[in-house]
Amino acid sequence: MRPVNTYTKSQEAFRRACKVIPSGIYGHQGPAEGCYVPVEAWPLYTSKAQGSWFWDLDGNKYIDYMCAYGPNILGYNDPDVDEAAAKQRAIGDCTTLPQTVMIDFADLLVDTVACADWAFFAKNGNDATTAAVMTARAHTRRKKLIMFKGYYHGVSPWTQKIDYAGVLEEDVVNNIVLPWNDVAALEQCFAENKGQIAAVVSQPYMHGNFHDNELPAPGFWQKVRQLCDENETVLIIDDVRAGFRMDLAGSDHYFGFEADLICFCKALANGYNVSALCGKAHLQNTVSSLSFTGSYWMSAVPFAAGIACIEKLKRIDAAKLLNEKGAKLRDGLVAAGKKYGFDLHVTGVPSLFYLRIADDPTLKLHQAWIAECVKRGVFFTTHHNHFINAALSDQDIAETIEIADEAFSIVANRR
Amino acid sequence: MRPVNTYTKSQEAFRRACKVIPSGIYGHQGPAEGCYVPVEAWPLYTSKAQGSWFWDLDGNKYIDYMCAYGPNILGYNDPDVDEAAAKQRAIGDCTTLPQTVMIDFADLLVDTVACADWAFFAKNGNDATTAAVMTARAHTRRKKLIMFKGYYHGVSPWTQKIDYAGVLEEDVVNNIVLPWNDVAALEQCFAENKGQIAAVVSQPYMHGNFHDNELPAPGFWQKVRQLCDENETVLIIDDVRAGFRMDLAGSDHYFGFEADLICFCKALANGYNVSALCGKAHLQNTVSSLSFTGSYWMSAVPFAAGIACIEKLKRIDAAKLLNEKGAKLRDGLVAAGKKYGFDLHVTGVPSLFYLRIADDPTLKLHQAWIAECVKRGVFFTTHHNHFINAALSDQDIAETIEIADEAFSIVANRR
Repeated sequence: MRPVNTYTKSQEAFRRACKVIPSGIYGHQGPAEGCYVPVEAWPLYTSKAQGSWFWDLDGNKYIDYMCAYGPNILGYNDPDVDEAAAKQRAIGDCTTLPQTVMIDFADLLVDTVACADWAFFAKNGNDATTAAVMTARAHTRRKKLIMFKGYYHGVSPWTQKIDYAGVLEEDVVNNIVLPWNDVAALEQCFAENKGQIAAVVSQPYMHGNFHDNELPAPGFWQKVRQLCDENETVLIIDDVRAGFRMDLAGSDHYFGFEADLICFCKALANGYNVSALCGKAHLQNTVSSLSFTGSYWMSAVPFAAGIACIEKLKRIDAAKLLNEKGAKLRDGLVAAGKKYGFDLHVTGVPSLFYLRIADDPTLKLHQAWIAECVKRGVFFTTHHNHFINAALSDQDIAETIEIADEAFSIVANRR
Repeated sequence: MRPVNTYTKSQEAFRRACKVIPSGIYGHQGPAEGCYVPVEAWPLYTSKAQGSWFWDLDGNKYIDYMCAYGPNILGYNDPDVDEAAAKQRAIGDCTTLPQTVMIDFADLLVDTVACADWAFFAKNGNDATTAAVMTARAHTRRKKLIMFKGYYHGVSPWTQKIDYAGVLEEDVVNNIVLPWNDVAALEQCFAENKGQIAAVVSQPYMHGNFHDNELPAPGFWQKVRQLCDENETVLIIDDVRAGFRMDLAGSDHYFGFEADLICFCKALANGYNVSALCGKAHLQNTVSSLSFTGSYWMSAVPFAAGIACIEKLKRIDAAKLLNEKGAKLRDGLVAAGKKYGFDLHVTGVPSLFYLRIADDPTLKLHQAWIAECVKRGVFFTTHHNHFINAALSDQDIAETIEIADEAFSIVANRR
């Protein structure tokens, strides 16, 4: 049996943080939302990261399957991306006027992403989804949005729910939430709201938390596209989480349709801070009509990093590579679970796999297994999809399966 | 007479950009919004920046009074900030778990900013203002916001106006906009909306576009503070633009009052991408209750840069220094104008000066003068406040005044 990690320094730092930062660590990286299990099993701070690994504050090393919740797609500190960024930084980053690297990056996205006739850059995924919704509303002069149960499109009030803190009914009154993969519900909704639906906003498949992730049913996206066309509704794909891990041409392209607007962030520049809204030519002037910008939105370093990142993703055929790695891991994990009588569900695409031990509907058995993996150096989370990066080696995968096996044996003994 | 700049390469690049980027250059840096004058007078792209200067794509050099619209406070490529950032980057930037440099930065802001008992970090100024408003609504369980005419608090739909593209009445229905410095209007508004005002949201003084900037009348802020206390309303100061250029302890502190929540961005890390919401202890748990985070929000490099930036701002007594430089420039510009019979108004605090030739209410004379300055290497804009940075030298100021003098002579001859 491997020794298990302890987190004395992480916990000390967390106590210090709680005095000066709301929640100590907020957001999905916080112990409240990130783990959904007794936090004692988790490290809380990173001290160093390289390739497919990070080290915590107590010096424990992890094979990282969260990839900073997506941005790390090539491996931490990728030399090609970092070199391009450093070169740009020496020239200038956040300057009064933009630099032409911004045009180069837009050109590259237009060449790469199937539905992209143009690109508009911002900083958060949420900036891109909000610009998309405003564009759809400005274009259609309509208010209502169709979204799908389990959605996550950022943190702006319009993306949230009425029972969330600080959210008003006005913020969400125009959101209609339908079940995923339900064509009949969608048809009925369009019929009942004739001429009122500004946009359908959706992730390319349902990769929400707490549930097995669900791919689109055959023909689902083609039907959505058809209904949007018939109703002059804008089809917005939120590819913030899945983008570039399924298809460099966009996750809509992977499923054989074309979005009108597509939102990218996370994997766009291997951790350098940029997001993008891309879309079809007929919406370009509408985007121009928005009052929408921010302090660092023209910064050149993330554009240079983004170019280096996408070019490398193309060179290594990243979507194929990441899914092969993910499939190898999936098969090993499922087989390890089976040895101990566990039915491990691995859902979503392999590069974005979601894990759930299906034998226990309370999810506690699953949480216990994940915790035993983490304490031994495999960084999983319990109820969020995971991310594969290109630096993940066969040896990393083999070690992950060994540790998962040991963790299964421990929770099997406790049953 | 100096030779005037030409912009062949900038204009070529802009034509290329227009094909793949909405508006070519969007936001306040775009020719549509940034200049408000015939764009032929302006360069459009930066090729290099250093200290108080940048060079455009055609090789013309500028003394820069826009400072990337605020972020450049120490000078471009400040060696101390860049060294701290590079050291942090070698360890890791955007990692799965945060790094303790995030706690160190929060500690430093709590030590530096008078009203700050805690700090919460994000990416845009707009993230901070939106978190502030959501916090105020969650805390008070009220909806309405009081803002002041000429306000700018970001680009989220709630910050915009009903006639702006993509904005719904639901987005802004709870905004009440009052005249600046009008205590009677404020008292009346509180009386008419008893128990309904969640927050007063305001910049520390009225530094809006197109109008001479207006400082608070004596006693204005003290009255606002009193009314907020009496009505249990949250007082939010949007210090995104003015922060650290008036008082390192916050612009509320400069005017002798304490905000409940204060928003920073721009000058926080000399161009590295970070924003912050700080506030009083009684609101810390409410911030924790928000669902509010983003992909790069825990990235460590901007925190390291922010620490180096604020520490240097303290070492050089930046607020005093920047205002002295601004005052020297102001006096020189006003005197140069007077030589040619122009009444140049320089308003706002000197480190954030706003320019207007008051002899012509159409503003065209002013635009012509600004254009002549820009074409000779002084980067001003027409109807937005300017920014002073610490690298601006006495020689830069003297050269600026010489160029301004020449520009005055030209527009005087044209009258």
